[in-house]
Amino acid sequence: MKTEEVTPIKIKKADSSKIEKVDFDHLTFGSVFTDHMFVCDYVNGSWGTPEIIPYQPLVLDPSARVFHYAQAVFEGMKAYRDDKDGIWLFRPDENFNRINKSSVRMAMPEFPEDYFFEGLKTLLKLDEKWIRKGEGNSLYIRPFVIATEPSVMASPSGQYKFVIICSPAQSYYGGEVRVKIADHYSRSASGGIGAAKAAANYGAQFYPTNLANKEGYQQVIWTDSNTHEYLEEAGTMNVFFRIGDKLLTAPTSDRILDGVTRKSVIAVAEANGITVEVRPVKVEEIVAAAKSGTLKEIFGSGTAAVINPVAGFGYKEDKFELPKSSDSYASMIKKAIIDIQYNRAEDPFGWRYEVR
Amino acid sequence: MKTEEVTPIKIKKADSSKIEKVDFDHLTFGSVFTDHMFVCDYVNGSWGTPEIIPYQPLVLDPSARVFHYAQAVFEGMKAYRDDKDGIWLFRPDENFNRINKSSVRMAMPEFPEDYFFEGLKTLLKLDEKWIRKGEGNSLYIRPFVIATEPSVMASPSGQYKFVIICSPAQSYYGGEVRVKIADHYSRSASGGIGAAKAAANYGAQFYPTNLANKEGYQQVIWTDSNTHEYLEEAGTMNVFFRIGDKLLTAPTSDRILDGVTRKSVIAVAEANGITVEVRPVKVEEIVAAAKSGTLKEIFGSGTAAVINPVAGFGYKEDKFELPKSSDSYASMIKKAIIDIQYNRAEDPFGWRYEVR
Ligand SMILES: Cc1ncc(COP(=O)(O)O)c(C=O)c1O
Ligand SMILES: Cc1ncc(COP(=O)(O)O)c(C=O)c1O
Repeated sequence: MKTEEVTPIKIKKADSSKIEKVDFDHLTFGSVFTDHMFVCDYVNGSWGTPEIIPYQPLVLDPSARVFHYAQAVFEGMKAYRDDKDGIWLFRPDENFNRINKSSVRMAMPEFPEDYFFEGLKTLLKLDEKWIRKGEGNSLYIRPFVIATEPSVMASPSGQYKFVIICSPAQSYYGGEVRVKIADHYSRSASGGIGAAKAAANYGAQFYPTNLANKEGYQQVIWTDSNTHEYLEEAGTMNVFFRIGDKLLTAPTSDRILDGVTRKSVIAVAEANGITVEVRPVKVEEIVAAAKSGTLKEIFGSGTAAVINPVAGFGYKEDKFELPKSSDSYASMIKKAIIDIQYNRAEDPFGWRYEVR
Repeated sequence: MKTEEVTPIKIKKADSSKIEKVDFDHLTFGSVFTDHMFVCDYVNGSWGTPEIIPYQPLVLDPSARVFHYAQAVFEGMKAYRDDKDGIWLFRPDENFNRINKSSVRMAMPEFPEDYFFEGLKTLLKLDEKWIRKGEGNSLYIRPFVIATEPSVMASPSGQYKFVIICSPAQSYYGGEVRVKIADHYSRSASGGIGAAKAAANYGAQFYPTNLANKEGYQQVIWTDSNTHEYLEEAGTMNVFFRIGDKLLTAPTSDRILDGVTRKSVIAVAEANGITVEVRPVKVEEIVAAAKSGTLKEIFGSGTAAVINPVAGFGYKEDKFELPKSSDSYASMIKKAIIDIQYNRAEDPFGWRYEVR
């Protein structure tokens, strides 16, 4: 006989819900949060009792190491509601494994699998009504871990807090996206933390992205910091290039985040007979293809927008516009992935995970 | 007639002092804090009223951007009490300029000079009794700025908090220091944020430093991330090498922090007739000098320990011990700097800054 061990989660419910005050048709990404949050503290070498509590501020000593040394990692995932009110996650095991991989690189303790899944499911069921039906609607889920020990000693913290907060999201269309290919600034170093979803990788990009914004670009595509000759990834997306009928994307490395959407794009493309070359992609090659007309598409892949088509790009003094096509790989692949996420299609890959 | 504009600082004093409970002879670096802290909030494009309040926790939304994107910078400086109860800072203008330089690189707003100096002086006067007389005693000062806007959007925060906390410190002797020269992991990328005193540069080093600790080294000396052929700096110190009678140190760059102590070491060495070569230093060159016996000293320079002599180093499979010398540059330069800091010597460079 199998005894199922259920993780005991302490639950304290909010007195009332904020949901009535939320305008679900005009959401700004990541700024409205649900009624509850999941928290779990690490002290003296182990994780304590996981808890769900009303969404509330964190109270931390000013010397907490997260403020001084950015010992912090996070994840981004989404929950979807199907037409029959089923609630689904997309490949959550990937996010779970990745947050622990990120934690290891940041000298932080790994989080137990059952705490993660039980915590997440319990939280989603409690805040279920925040997950709305309909195209593009989802609940963005943000697990994160921060170093909380009060001490400005420059060494790993002995105390941490694991938190999950959730924010309702609409499908995001931010207008046409033009990207700048980095030729001076860098996102990450070989031997650095670029492969970790560590807070430290993000703030560092804001300044060069601001500079690109001023030149009329919405985002930067980072290149390798050694030579700036190879295309790596965007700020929160991996990047694909379609030349002729082939898709190209950079291999993951210690500089590049191993994106869940990237993996899924590769699998869907290949299942649809598209050749995907995962190999170093030279800036030169993309510029040449743009000039000769064989560059058909560029798109980013990431949890927030699934696929984000790029309308044009700039490299040094040159600007290139991409052709508009009606049968883009971007839209075909996006539809295939979204149909799986919303439980509107078969799931040949076993990616869907039912919350209840 | 000159009207002096004095910055109005709102002061709320602590009801009682914690100082009686502190064992000043057994302080752990950076874990005990004084009775007050300085805070100032940035909202709607400007810094609000600077305040001094009792030392207390920060209350932040779980979505505050510092937790997710490490938009955070800091400084490290010290206050010293001389034998006649004068209170001194060491080159505080350097720290003020550097925190703003760091903020710019992290897409954060600069802090006004008068707020910084008035805030710092007022805080130090209020917590004056925490600054103890005597060799090695000092008050470590930690100004820092964090992004507080509640939103997980991956873009610069619109709200920030500038904070100064202070922690009494003793002279630090952590035993003999042996360092590992990095041949795989990196601290920063060309085009990255290594020159900023950004939180993001520190957490990233903990994991490789842990690995070095396991091999018996206390610290890592980072090399350039492109080739690992050039010596750059340590985790919280710049590094000097003495070959024969010359001192070598790497030039600052966008990968290396422009240390206040480093500058001071160079000036003191030159004033004492020592040749200082500020130029790229090859690992190869240092290994060869260690083998031939011309490598006399390695030391780190930083606010915490001023000068930290290195007893030995490891590079790949090899280990080297440095000769013990009684007339080391390290101790001569350290004494010269400390004598200026404690107002025990002339200050030909104009480095001292009196708090009152
Ligand atoms: C740097 C970076 N690259 C790529 C991605 C895409 O990863 P995923 O598809 O897992 O969301 C993200 C996160 O969204 C990211 O932060
Ligand atoms: C990375 C790094 N290098 C060097 C130093 C030394 O700088 P300073 O002499 O200004 O303390 C520090 C800070 O202490 C540092 O964090």
